[in-house]
Amino acid sequence: MPLFERMVVAGVGLIGGSLGLAARGRSLVGEVVGYGRGEANLKVALERGAIDRYSRSPEEAAEGADLVVLAVPVRSLRPVAERMLPHARQDAVVIDVGSVKGKVVESLSPLVRPPAAFVGCHPVAGTEHSGAANALQDLFDGQLCIVTPTASTAPQALARVRALWEGLGMRVESMSPAEHDRLLALVSHLPHVVAYALVAAIERESVADRDPLSYSGGGLRDTTRIASSQAEMWRDIFLDNRAEVLRTIDQFNAAVARLREMIDREEAAPLEAELDRVRRARGRLSKERGG
Amino acid sequence: MPLFERMVVAGVGLIGGSLGLAARGRSLVGEVVGYGRGEANLKVALERGAIDRYSRSPEEAAEGADLVVLAVPVRSLRPVAERMLPHARQDAVVIDVGSVKGKVVESLSPLVRPPAAFVGCHPVAGTEHSGAANALQDLFDGQLCIVTPTASTAPQALARVRALWEGLGMRVESMSPAEHDRLLALVSHLPHVVAYALVAAIERESVADRDPLSYSGGGLRDTTRIASSQAEMWRDIFLDNRAEVLRTIDQFNAAVARLREMIDREEAAPLEAELDRVRRARGRLSKERGG
Repeated sequence: MPLFERMVVAGVGLIGGSLGLAARGRSLVGEVVGYGRGEANLKVALERGAIDRYSRSPEEAAEGADLVVLAVPVRSLRPVAERMLPHARQDAVVIDVGSVKGKVVESLSPLVRPPAAFVGCHPVAGTEHSGAANALQDLFDGQLCIVTPTASTAPQALARVRALWEGLGMRVESMSPAEHDRLLALVSHLPHVVAYALVAAIERESVADRDPLSYSGGGLRDTTRIASSQAEMWRDIFLDNRAEVLRTIDQFNAAVARLREMIDREEAAPLEAELDRVRRARGRLSKERGG
Repeated sequence: MPLFERMVVAGVGLIGGSLGLAARGRSLVGEVVGYGRGEANLKVALERGAIDRYSRSPEEAAEGADLVVLAVPVRSLRPVAERMLPHARQDAVVIDVGSVKGKVVESLSPLVRPPAAFVGCHPVAGTEHSGAANALQDLFDGQLCIVTPTASTAPQALARVRALWEGLGMRVESMSPAEHDRLLALVSHLPHVVAYALVAAIERESVADRDPLSYSGGGLRDTTRIASSQAEMWRDIFLDNRAEVLRTIDQFNAAVARLREMIDREEAAPLEAELDRVRRARGRLSKERGG
């Protein structure tokens, strides 16, 4: 028996589309309805089997849904939720899948009134690509999903949401929205700022009429891969998690300044010790794939 | 007929070992002699077929060589060259394979007297691993090799060195040592500083007793892969190319500051435009593998 009878996915992009593919593939939901603004992308989602049907009306798409997945850009979350929720089942479970939790949980929680329930979710998975065409059935498999319940989150709804993500092969961990945003600023948002800044610093240069970017090796390519991510999405993440992102940039600047000073002063032994310390610390990185 | 009769490789690590494997595999050299301080690594090189024989004496290893490859750490280049050159053939071709060229070319050129000839080389290939055990026969295939001749470089020696790298499948490009160091500071040395600093900034933090590094996804892992590189080697590169490395760090800091300011001031439209501009610029990256 499926966990939910009808899942409506608002925003059938990389995450929403992959969720549809994976949940249908594992029979975790009875039916998947897609909602989005662009019909071309919805057709791709339909052809690829990410959804059973779609509507370009949020009200129509949400009709009778017992699971509402809000996978639209952050700025559209609230208006889409406001239009969908009156048409979903009264006891629907509502989740989002965004990369920032504090603002979103604060904004959406008051819209969802019992017996409906909201659970903030962040499946930490992704690629630098976007759209239903790039959705992957195994995107979530073996990855981490962070759920951010609050004091008012209904335990039963939380249990069903955990079961959904675990059914997709995810490891589910619970923390507060603030802890989530602090953690993700460090391990995801800051690396994106750094990757964008690295490309920006290099691409303005030329060396005797040579374009440095065309001389990149694997190091620069890996280091900047995530700078190919969607600009609109990352603008929203940086601004929605602004305080934490600024704080982590400042910490990073201090780390750059420490290395710069050792190079400037030609402090060979401390420099080697610091590089070696960092190299060993990197061994603590998670071995998992994902965003 | 091989290009060189006897190649001595001083320092049979990732680059020296891969060069031995590849040049022997393609019969570009008649015999490969290894020199190094550590016998364990030399034995691995011998077992893996990177060298035909080895000696732990630089004089003995260089005996009768018509190609001297200096692949030892930068600080050992000059002392090793001084001991080897009197024993190599009088008309030997001498190359290095280091990541910084200005200082090395300046230091080694006067040691090599005609009819012997020195050609600075930088095969832009590598991995974050080191040692003969990690040498790869196809490490150079399809990659770029930068050669840095000066006004005094004998054209015939340069032609033979180009033929060697091209014989390994490399694309060979010639530029001045200064241009090389400026270019590599941008596309390789700066990304290494950034990757080390990123790990350093994150690894000191904890979020409610959680180790952020254990929450990393693919983005952080890719962005920091090169921070697993050998500390001693990168200490030398940063210090040998100090002026250019400091200059590129300053440019990078300015790029971070521009993004930080847009985030701080919540300038949504300019921020999105900048992220999108950078994302498109990244499309100019070389599609090749390599260091």
